[in-house]
Parts: sequence; structure tokens; C-alpha cells
Amino acid sequence: MKKFSPYTDLALEAAEALTVNEQEQEGIELSCESSEAAEITTVKITNEEGSRKTGKPRGSYITIESPYMRENTPELHEEIKKTLAKSLAQLCPLKENDSVLVVGLGNRYVTPDSLGPKVISGILVTRHIKENLPGELKDSVRPVAAVTPGVMGLTGIESAEIIKGIAERIRPSAIIAIDALAARKATRINTTLQLADTGVTPGAGVGNTRGALNRETMGVPVIAIGVPTVVDAATLVNDSLNSIIGSMREASKSGSEFYKMLEDLSAEEKYSLISECLDPYTENMFVTPKEVDSVVESLADIISGGINMALHEGINSENVNKVI
Amino acid sequence: MKKFSPYTDLALEAAEALTVNEQEQEGIELSCESSEAAEITTVKITNEEGSRKTGKPRGSYITIESPYMRENTPELHEEIKKTLAKSLAQLCPLKENDSVLVVGLGNRYVTPDSLGPKVISGILVTRHIKENLPGELKDSVRPVAAVTPGVMGLTGIESAEIIKGIAERIRPSAIIAIDALAARKATRINTTLQLADTGVTPGAGVGNTRGALNRETMGVPVIAIGVPTVVDAATLVNDSLNSIIGSMREASKSGSEFYKMLEDLSAEEKYSLISECLDPYTENMFVTPKEVDSVVESLADIISGGINMALHEGINSENVNKVI
Amino acid sequence: MKKFSPYTDLALEAAEALTVNEQEQEGIELSCESSEAAEITTVKITNEEGSRKTGKPRGSYITIESPYMRENTPELHEEIKKTLAKSLAQLCPLKENDSVLVVGLGNRYVTPDSLGPKVISGILVTRHIKENLPGELKDSVRPVAAVTPGVMGLTGIESAEIIKGIAERIRPSAIIAIDALAARKATRINTTLQLADTGVTPGAGVGNTRGALNRETMGVPVIAIGVPTVVDAATLVNDSLNSIIGSMREASKSGSEFYKMLEDLSAEEKYSLISECLDPYTENMFVTPKEVDSVVESLADIISGGINMALHEGINSENVNKVI
Amino acid sequence: MKKFSPYTDLALEAAEALTVNEQEQEGIELSCESSEAAEITTVKITNEEGSRKTGKPRGSYITIESPYMRENTPELHEEIKKTLAKSLAQLCPLKENDSVLVVGLGNRYVTPDSLGPKVISGILVTRHIKENLPGELKDSVRPVAAVTPGVMGLTGIESAEIIKGIAERIRPSAIIAIDALAARKATRINTTLQLADTGVTPGAGVGNTRGALNRETMGVPVIAIGVPTVVDAATLVNDSLNSIIGSMREASKSGSEFYKMLEDLSAEEKYSLISECLDPYTENMFVTPKEVDSVVESLADIISGGINMALHEGINSENVNKVI
Repeated sequence: MKKFSPYTDLALEAAEALTVNEQEQEGIELSCESSEAAEITTVKITNEEGSRKTGKPRGSYITIESPYMRENTPELHEEIKKTLAKSLAQLCPLKENDSVLVVGLGNRYVTPDSLGPKVISGILVTRHIKENLPGELKDSVRPVAAVTPGVMGLTGIESAEIIKGIAERIRPSAIIAIDALAARKATRINTTLQLADTGVTPGAGVGNTRGALNRETMGVPVIAIGVPTVVDAATLVNDSLNSIIGSMREASKSGSEFYKMLEDLSAEEKYSLISECLDPYTENMFVTPKEVDSVVESLADIISGGINMALHEGINSENVNKVI
Repeated sequence: MKKFSPYTDLALEAAEALTVNEQEQEGIELSCESSEAAEITTVKITNEEGSRKTGKPRGSYITIESPYMRENTPELHEEIKKTLAKSLAQLCPLKENDSVLVVGLGNRYVTPDSLGPKVISGILVTRHIKENLPGELKDSVRPVAAVTPGVMGLTGIESAEIIKGIAERIRPSAIIAIDALAARKATRINTTLQLADTGVTPGAGVGNTRGALNRETMGVPVIAIGVPTVVDAATLVNDSLNSIIGSMREASKSGSEFYKMLEDLSAEEKYSLISECLDPYTENMFVTPKEVDSVVESLADIISGGINMALHEGINSENVNKVI
Repeated sequence: MKKFSPYTDLALEAAEALTVNEQEQEGIELSCESSEAAEITTVKITNEEGSRKTGKPRGSYITIESPYMRENTPELHEEIKKTLAKSLAQLCPLKENDSVLVVGLGNRYVTPDSLGPKVISGILVTRHIKENLPGELKDSVRPVAAVTPGVMGLTGIESAEIIKGIAERIRPSAIIAIDALAARKATRINTTLQLADTGVTPGAGVGNTRGALNRETMGVPVIAIGVPTVVDAATLVNDSLNSIIGSMREASKSGSEFYKMLEDLSAEEKYSLISECLDPYTENMFVTPKEVDSVVESLADIISGGINMALHEGINSENVNKVI
Repeated sequence: MKKFSPYTDLALEAAEALTVNEQEQEGIELSCESSEAAEITTVKITNEEGSRKTGKPRGSYITIESPYMRENTPELHEEIKKTLAKSLAQLCPLKENDSVLVVGLGNRYVTPDSLGPKVISGILVTRHIKENLPGELKDSVRPVAAVTPGVMGLTGIESAEIIKGIAERIRPSAIIAIDALAARKATRINTTLQLADTGVTPGAGVGNTRGALNRETMGVPVIAIGVPTVVDAATLVNDSLNSIIGSMREASKSGSEFYKMLEDLSAEEKYSLISECLDPYTENMFVTPKEVDSVVESLADIISGGINMALHEGINSENVNKVI
């Protein structure tokens, strides 16, 4: 799980906070399409100005939004897997035989943070058997490896250092990293999937750049796949506060003065006011839905399924048996 | 985990909300003692009036409070185990050879709710081997059984029904049930342990009495042991709101009008106002600390250790080997 | 896991040990069919004589054999699920709205014995929500509950006692119990699935009848579903010994005298000779394949899938979302 | 788990197979001591001849044997932890502030192979917090990191490659690697602990040297800690066969001719004869005790406790709280 901050992990939210005019001026391109199962939005940040305004590195971000992710709808999940596979191919075109390292970030012992490790359990790993496969299959199977580095609190090592060390040994053509994110809005939880060609900084706080997992630090393309599975406590209080005051103001006008004062604060000032008011223990808390166990299982199945589709085009239900 | 409600699960908090005068009038007796490791408070609710005022059934409640529960302090944990064993013996005096059924409530797949099942893993189970033990040990070993009924969402059956069915078959002299609770205050999380001779209602909502696990439904004494491991989202927002408004009022007076209006609402009205303002999905969320995995392990060790001490006085490090 | 014994858990093996003539005389009926994915054999034991000869209670046994169970072949697994669903319907015809209790026997902490608990994770549980479903769905959904009683070593209670207690409370129309079995032949491991309308005796040893889970003890039909996931050490040695001596005899005749002496022993005498020669610790061991983790996952998916198909005909990919 | 081979993983067994005379001539030194809890044997292999004869690299091996490891005897376990800590200090003398990487080899999803990952859960990890500790503690705490690389079947990468990559990034002063071993004798299972300064080759087969985890490949001392938790199927059959023939020969002389023929075979010839007679699936099987789950937990506690004692002399029950 990333450290909490007032900034959103989702480029889409950051872009939407700007006017269309601002977007155009600052090299931010948005495009949408939608299917029965999901809405897909691509955000491209093409210059430094856009990066500064959104707080996101230059690059491409694809957001797949679907309320069905947290529901038990096998056929729609199949659609979302296909969309994920297609988006992955777009962000990271692979040549035949290019090898891939899939990385499951997060803590397997904390339910909402176990998404990354759970995805790894579903990945079709082939790097170690490719050489022993029969001829025609050997050529069509891409070498795929998969690791779960664990979290710094349990290993004493930054995840990015572990991945960097492994990547230097096995030299993959690309890295795909899966991480649970902190959402800005409770409604986003378990309904939004973001792919980004800009990588990820596990447990990132402001100014901590040692920990980045991206093309600069790894030397190969790093695609990050993230799903918000929690909201941090201060964000929840912040949003609720706005909603409460809004509803009271409508009803009675009595909140107006208070609201005006809050409105004068910048988003950042407001967030730190709230953080200060939360006691020190609370600040380090996360908020997650009660049915988190089954939803995380289901999300992990969607993501591993989508990645397998993207990486192993040559493998189908007829020949998968020879691979495993 | 119990369903969220504006009421506290802790009798101590309910009693403290009353004035000393009220307490006396309504048959509520409080007594305290403290050790290096913990503060122990006993609350006795002796009549219907006291029960109505606190929202708790008549009976005895022992609260063990200690910030050390969530820290790695083996020697202080040993103290807390002894305190727990003593409190258990107080609430539920057992005769030699009285048998006990220990029940771990909650969902093993959701970290903060896995406290009950984790405690069960640490219980010294003896019911099935007592008959085969050598003579002198056979007499000193109490028959102890232990089960984890699972949660209704996964079994389709109320936990109380499962326990009732098992208890009718094996006829224990007493039942001890462990459950993760929802706290009213974030600071209580993982620092407070409540024992009650009034039993527990797993997943309890108002008016749902089928699900109670107590002397009436089970026919034998039921001791509940609970630790708050989460806060519900509405409670957190509620508390934060009060704290924010308080701090703003001091600073600028600008919140006063708004605050006054809020103050005029009863606690219940305020709670449901907030619940309504939270979107339907948020309402069903819980808040828990990030280090929840290691703290729950540690709490489970404290509780199973305390229960083993209380139930197996005749077993010590010399002869435990013959039992297991 | 059942306790080891020289007898096979599979009625098919017991029946095949007899001549066709014996089978006919003793009320044992065999019939076969086969599909692309599996061979299905039905054994019916219709009288006491047949029961005595095979060591199995009177009743019907359906064996589904398929090497594909331990391979990753999604489409063939789908076929096996359908076969399982059909066999289940044959052994236990259910009326609309008949309720079912599914029981996962075994120890979740020992990989080859975790089959039962893993199946339970995949069962579509509906008993607790039926009343809240929209009209047309309410009628088409069967009430299904699912429990994992745990093993006696961890609970202190026989599994059958726990299930009996629960069944008396919730009164299901039928019980389906899943258990890992001990095979007689290593080749059977993870490739054979037996359904029986005669129930099961978890951890059964000779003469232990308290523990039986069948129509007599439960008062309703009990269908047992079992897969051999281990072989016991003595069986493995026994089979290997025969095979070694056979191969040496062919090669050099030097084993003939020894072999002859062994051949004069009955199967039971030979088994106990071997058990005596194994040291006491070994005797209590099991043998299992190294890839047991992934195979058990795959078997659990096949079995839960098949059970869901059989129990929830009214639920399909269109409306499953309303149920969960 | 290491791949099975007719050779023993334990230097002690290999040395004991030689006569005292041979031992002396070939640079093999044995010394013993014993305590209430355990027998400790040190084997030193000092030249190439000794290495060739035993099939073990030159180096020091300490074997701690104790039947109490698989029993629940807390005080004797404490003794074994101390013995382990002392032995570790002997094989790998560390200077103040030398950093250590602890590696848990094996597959967390297969019970007897989960020893390594379970040990890691108990290691006191400090590398990431050392800089933030208060002055006096900062100096007395050694930087310790801990990782579980997973097995090649799940990651597609040799464990040694993963560890090599991580070690190159974090440059520890020494590596400690824990692995479950295959025993040669069923009685050794879960009762013997071997420490070796020669490292380990996870999943080693003959001629596979890429996978070695030792001073040569890692550039720093590598201490291996291993416990046999399984026996391979062919070894079990082999030992049983010998024991059966022996007992029959005594009784009736009828096995003598057969036995003689077997005796003429070398140990290796006999092992491969047996392996050939086992069917291909059986060959890939392991044998383990039924109570493997609780024994592995207990062994992991002993090993992590011993390692923590050895690495963190400056940390005691008074100040551990500041570290975690």
C-alpha cells in the first residue's frame, strides 16, 4: 500500500480536476471509450507543465472503471480481462520472445494490501521451463517470471531494491508491477483499475525517490497496475465533512459561515488541518469495505487473467497443459 | 466483527458516560485497580435501570486496558496473560474436571476480524485425549474443546446456531467466546480487552436476539472476551468532526453557530446524520491500523496464553509434553 | 484424512478384486461409461453378502477417473464438473427448495488434507440470504449452507459430532461431505473422485462407528465425495516390494523363493508384517506428490464447481450477481 | 525442499558411514558434546579426500539432535535455541554492526517445505529502522534483513539467482539460509538440525552448480541451517525392504538368497533399482508425518528464536520494544 497523501494516485482524477482549457494548454490529452463492462479513459501527459499541474510523471495512463469488478459477474469479468490485456499491449508492445518479470507488491498478511501477492499466485510462470518445451510451443511461449518482494516492515529492504537486484540478474525486457492503491474517494474502491507506463513507487511519500520502480531505475519499461482497495482515514473524514456541511447548508443555512471558512482553505491546508485533528494513531489508519476478502480474490483473478492473456497469446486451452 | 452501531461494545465507556450520582442510583458499581502492565476496571450492572441506561445486560464486565498490548513487550504481555487468567476465574469459577468449549468468532480471511480464529490456534485442546492420559495427569487435566464456526456470509448459518448445536452434543460446563469488536474511539483499538459474563451477540444488530450466545440461549455460563480492532467509518467521522469543530472554534469562533446546531442533536441523531451523508458503500466500511497483522498475532497470543493459564492449572512446563 | 488401513476407500477397487462370477452372485453390479474427459463407473452393492466381500456398506458408488484432474486443462475440468453434477443428482435427487449442508472435512493446515476446507471456500452459500432475494430468484435458489468442522486433534471433538449438532439445528434435506482419502495405489492419487450415498467416517479406524457421517447417524441422506490425495507409507512399501520382487524374479529367478513365501501370506498378513517392520514413527506417515499444493487447488475448484452446478440450477451467469 | 538423491544431506551420516581409521586418514574430524536437551556433533572436513569420500564440501558442520524438537517442551526448546545461537556464532563470527541477510528457502504452500518461510516470520528485522533508533540502541542493534525468495516452480527463477541479486544490492556481511531437507532415515525427521558453513544448493541435483548459495557464489559467508522434514519415497522403500528382509531372514531363512543378491549391489545400484521399480509418479513423492503442521510451527519457532539470540545480543526484553 502506498503511504497516504492528499494527492490522488489516479491520473484521471488529477486531470479531471483541471478545466478543458487548462488540459489543452498543458499537454494533457484525454480520450474515452466504453463497453458493456467498463469505461476506459486514456490520459496522456505530454510535457513538464502537465506533469507539474497533475503531480504525475509524463506518460500514458489507462483507467478501466467498472462497478462489476466488485460483483460476482463472471462474463463481465471476462470482458474486463480482455480490456486489461489490450491496454497492457498498448502501453507496452512486446516482441516475440521478450521476457517479462511480474511483481506483486504489498503485504500478503493484510487483506486489502494482499492484492499484489494474490495476483502472482495466478500468473502462468514459464521462464524456467521454456527450454524443455516441445519445438513449436517453445517458440510461442514467452519467458515469464513472477516474484513477491514483501514489504519493508517485514524484510528490512525497500521493494524496489529487491526488484532491481533480481532484474539485474535475469534481465527481463519489461516489468509489470501490481500494487494496491489508496483511493481519494470511497466510491472508487475496488471499481477502478489504472495501468501506467510511468511505473510505481511502493510505499511512496513525498521526496522519497530511492524507492521508485520505473524505466529510469530499472533500465526497462515498467508498467504499473493498481487498484484502490482502501481510503486513508483523513481523506474519508475530509470528504464526509464536505458532504455533511453541504447537506446542512442546504437544509438550514446554518453551516454557511463555517463552510465559507473551510472553502477559503486550499485542499492541502484542509487535509493537514484534518490530519492534525486526528490523533496520531488514527492518522496511520486505513478504511476498507467489510467484504474486502472476497473482492480482493476476485480482483486478483481479473488482473492475473488479463496479464496471462496479454503475455501468452500462443497459449490456449488446447496446449496450456503442456506448459504447466 | 459486530455490526456497527452508535452504541459502544464496552460497558466501561457506557458507564463512564454517566455521572457518579447516576451510577449509584442505577445499580452500577465501578471498581479499579492497576498494575505495572495494565489498568483493570470492573463494572457491575445490578438492576434493570442500570441495564437500560448503559444499553448493556445485567452482569459483570472486566476491562483490562494497556497500551503495551500493541507493543512487543514479552514480559508485560506475560503480566497481562496472568491478569486475564485471574479475571476469567473471577467471572467463571470452574470446578475440577468442569469441561470448557472455547469459541473463536469472526472471519479468518479478514485481518482485523481474524482474532477469534487465531486465538483458537493457540488453545491447548484436551477433550479428546483425557481418557488416554496417565493416571495422575488425567485427574488434573480439564477437558477443553475449541471451534471456529466461521461467519454467516461464508457458512449461511448464524454462529450462535452452530455453537448451540455443538454445545448440545458435547455439553460443556461453560463456554468462552472470543470476538473482535468495533471500538467507539480509535485510541481504544488494540489496547483494551473486555471480559463479560453476559455473553456476546456475533454480528449483532438492534433487535436481533436469535444470534445471542449467552447463558439463556446456551444453558451454561458464556464468558465473552473481546478486543476492539476496528472503528466504523461513521464513528471516525463523528469523532473527527467534533475534534475539528472544537479546534476551529477555539481558534476563530467561526464554527460556533454550526457547532451549536450539532450540539443540539442527540448522539443518535448525529450518528444517523453522518451515516446518511456517507455514501451507501462507505457506510459498510471499517477503519483499522496499518500494522494490524502483527498486532492481531500478538493479541491472539496474549488471549490464548491467558485462557490456557486459567483452564489448565494442573499443566506446567514439566508435564505439558505428556498432554500434547 | 482417514486413518490408514489395508482396505481401500474405493468401492471400485474392492469390486474389481472379485471375479465377474463372484460379483454376480453377491449382488454387486458394475456399469461403465466414458467421455473424452473421464471414465465413470457405477458400483451398486445390493446385499449383505456383497457388503461383506467388499468391506463396503450397501449402497451406490460412482467413480470418476481422469488423469486430467491433475493437469491444467480448463475445458476438460469443465466436463468433469458437469459429470460430477450429474452423478450427484443421480445419487441424491433433490426437490425444489430442498436445503443442503456442505461439509469440508480435514485439516486446513496440512496441504493434502486441506481439500475439504478448500472446497468450502468455493461453495455458493445462500441459506442466509434466500429470504431477501427478489421474488422470482427466491424461488429458484436452493438454501445451501457450508461448514468446515476442523479435525479432532485441533478441536477436541469428532467431526461427526459437530456436524450432527449443526444438522439438528438447521435441519438440511441432505448433507454433502468432502474428504481427502488415502489411496491404495500411488497412480490413483489426485486422479480419482468417488461419490457414495453411504456417507463417510472421518478419521475412521476399524470398529469406530461413533464417528460415522451417514443417513443412520444424521437422519438425512449423506453423500460423500472423496479424492485420494495420499498413500500411506506401508501401502507404498507393500506395492513397491511386490513390484521389485517381480522384476528381479523375471531378471534372475533369485527372488523366487522369497516371493513364494510372501505370496503364501494373505494381503492382510503381508500388510501387518510390513507395518511391524516400519518403525513406529514411520507407520504414522503419509506419502504425497511434491506438486500437491497446486493439484489440491485445482481439485477443490473442480469439486466446488460441480457441487454449485448441481445445487443451483436456477442460478446462471446472468443472475448470480443478485445472489452474492 | 532439495531434490531427492541417494546421498544424505547430513554430513554426520556421511561421516559415520566411514570407519574411525578412514576418518582420520581423510581429514575428517568428529567431536561430540551433549546437554540435557540435545546432542551436538561437530564434523570438520579438512581436505579434498574427505570431501570426496563423504560427498560434502570442505567445511564445518554442526548437528544438533534432539527428540524434544518434535515435542511440546518449552524449556528444552529454550535450551536448543541457545545451542543454536552458540553454534551459529562459532561458524560465523560477526563483528559489531556486521549486517546479515536471513533467507527462508522453500514453498510456503506445502506444509513440510514451509519451514524456511515460517522462520522468516519470526526474525527480528532491523535493517530499515537502525538509523531511526535512539543513540545507545542504534549502536547495539545489528542490521538484519529477511527474505523468502519462493520456489522456482512458482517464480520461474532459481532461488540462488534471486538471493544473489538482492545481496549485490544490500551487501550483507553474511547470509543465513534456512531450508527443509530430505532425510535418509525416517527417525531423523524433525529431530535433527544441521548448521554448515558450506552453504546450500536449493533444489540441488547432481551437476547443477548454478543454484549454489555459498561463499563462492555470494562473495560472503553463507551459513545453511537445515532440518529434515520429509523422506523421499525410494529411501523409505529401500530402508523398509532391508528391515523386512532382515526380519524374515531371521525368522525363516527364506529371504537369504534374495538378501544376498541385494547385498551384492552397491547402495547406489540398489537405490536406482528401487527408483526404477517405483512408477514415474511415485518417484516424485515425499513421505512426511501426519502431525507435520504443528511440528513445523514449533521448529520454525526454535530456529527463529536461536537466530534472533545470535544476531541481536544487544536486544533484551527491556529494550526490544523500542526496536519494533
